[in-house]
Amino acid sequence: MLRVSYDELYTALYHAMLSLGFASERAAQCARLFAETTRDGVYTHGLNRFPRFAASIANGSVNVSAEPSKTAGMGAIERWDGHRGVGNLNAQASMQRAIDLAKQYGIGGVALGNTNHWMRGGSYGLQAADQGMFAMCWTNTLANMPAWGAKTPTLGNNPLIIAIPRAGGHVILDMAASQFSYGTLAAYSKRGQPLPVDGGFDSAGNLTKDAAAIEASQRALPIGYWKGSGLSLVLDMLAAMLSGGLATHQIPRDPTRESGISQIFLAIDPSSVADQQELTQIAEGILNTLREATPVDAGKPVRYPGEQMLHIREENLRLGVPVDPEIWKQVNDLRQS
Amino acid sequence: MLRVSYDELYTALYHAMLSLGFASERAAQCARLFAETTRDGVYTHGLNRFPRFAASIANGSVNVSAEPSKTAGMGAIERWDGHRGVGNLNAQASMQRAIDLAKQYGIGGVALGNTNHWMRGGSYGLQAADQGMFAMCWTNTLANMPAWGAKTPTLGNNPLIIAIPRAGGHVILDMAASQFSYGTLAAYSKRGQPLPVDGGFDSAGNLTKDAAAIEASQRALPIGYWKGSGLSLVLDMLAAMLSGGLATHQIPRDPTRESGISQIFLAIDPSSVADQQELTQIAEGILNTLREATPVDAGKPVRYPGEQMLHIREENLRLGVPVDPEIWKQVNDLRQS
Repeated sequence: MLRVSYDELYTALYHAMLSLGFASERAAQCARLFAETTRDGVYTHGLNRFPRFAASIANGSVNVSAEPSKTAGMGAIERWDGHRGVGNLNAQASMQRAIDLAKQYGIGGVALGNTNHWMRGGSYGLQAADQGMFAMCWTNTLANMPAWGAKTPTLGNNPLIIAIPRAGGHVILDMAASQFSYGTLAAYSKRGQPLPVDGGFDSAGNLTKDAAAIEASQRALPIGYWKGSGLSLVLDMLAAMLSGGLATHQIPRDPTRESGISQIFLAIDPSSVADQQELTQIAEGILNTLREATPVDAGKPVRYPGEQMLHIREENLRLGVPVDPEIWKQVNDLRQS
Repeated sequence: MLRVSYDELYTALYHAMLSLGFASERAAQCARLFAETTRDGVYTHGLNRFPRFAASIANGSVNVSAEPSKTAGMGAIERWDGHRGVGNLNAQASMQRAIDLAKQYGIGGVALGNTNHWMRGGSYGLQAADQGMFAMCWTNTLANMPAWGAKTPTLGNNPLIIAIPRAGGHVILDMAASQFSYGTLAAYSKRGQPLPVDGGFDSAGNLTKDAAAIEASQRALPIGYWKGSGLSLVLDMLAAMLSGGLATHQIPRDPTRESGISQIFLAIDPSSVADQQELTQIAEGILNTLREATPVDAGKPVRYPGEQMLHIREENLRLGVPVDPEIWKQVNDLRQS
């Protein structure tokens, strides 16, 4: 495995972004989001996503210069148009606006339409938590999952992020509505390994752990069967209706042309209703109870969402961030071009 | 099956509430919430819950006279103390306050601590949607589900409700974080039927469809395995931290003494950012696509969350609402006592 230092990774991505036409400050922000995602172990949505990201810019789906603008709003809620700009920069700006509204009103919301793939959704939860805010955000996606009771994919997997600020490490849920992403299915099918739990239906309509069979049927399983199906639908409705942007069924199904998507960003300032000491006491009480649960495997203590990420981050900062040699070369070649 | 008219059901419940010590107007509101829940087919949380509700009043867990009061707040977010009052009345008042805040600020939030079981969470989603509001709300519960990787239950199943107003029938998700409630498990185990999908672990630690085995192990399955486990945890953290109320691990595990729980109510006024025509157009586009998906079973078209409820409601209003004869007698006896 090739490992490079975080600074090397960031710098290479920064220069690659400049080559793709970004202005300097935006190149730095976008490179930082990609590099942090890889540093934190979310390999599917950091450096490894760069080739698809570059292709989306090349085919005109992503406009590297567009900045979001406010189109409607009242009090603590606003609608913004992403103008098909860079997904992670648009999302970061929208969460920042929700945070600023929460500072003013205790809670704030931004509905962002006409934007692009935000890469790792957890980035915006961490952004809010770093500023002491509770946050929820979600995005719709192209159709990649059948509704419960259907064979044909009409729902997105619509990741939902919920973040809770905490001095000892933020608690952050980053959860798609499908049991496994197609990226994960591809990794299992390449290795010929069965999934740890059922991940979808085979072409005969039976639940299966065979990733290749699910890739063939395109029938990924919603989390909790009918429940995740319903969750995906309502998240799409909220995002599209409040932003005035596209719903899942209107988003092009070619991944490099998945564009014009809809997102929601909510932030809550806990200092509106609680003091820090109380917040810490309640959070630590909950997490201590979780740690004290009897583990299924004595060697594997129960973890909170986001805990494992901190271990991976520490390791990757210490040993270097693992990179795919081919993609690493591609990013560096772009830098020199 | 015994069926009674909606009016009979409501009237019997109203008089029963009076016998339990409710003031007249509060008896009417509480009876209406119980009766509507049964009318809508959520049988586990309406009339059938009445004996447990009466027991909670008798043992002092629920104070029929207590009303919620505001203890903190800033702008569009407030913290309320439920004073261990009647759970459904406290929840209704809190959602109404969130709606009123949303009318003023576009979005509003209420964190309610020290309250009691809200019965059907969907009631408060419907309440908001009836007033043209988008809404999300959730509650924590006593510990009834092990975290992913644990054998001992430290998490609640923490139902999450998301509602979208719609002239043709609100879209309403009412989703617990466990795959099946213990009420549902009991019904399957009584009938000796296997669950439709895995619902938990048996005492040997294997996933199983055997409801009785899950009742014995007390190892109910989170939706989406590790995902529902994380979702339950973060919903508990948000509810307890923002309300200053109890977290799941602090709630008494005796169902008739489950008291002092924490809830969150969020409302968004879509008229802050969109006009009605646009909202309708986007919603109908999404639901039409869902309807056009190829069903697994040609006789079973795909439904949106809340659609089946409308059919059951119509049938129950037409034929009478099904009631359990024993509980029906108990409610009527209380009326005459």
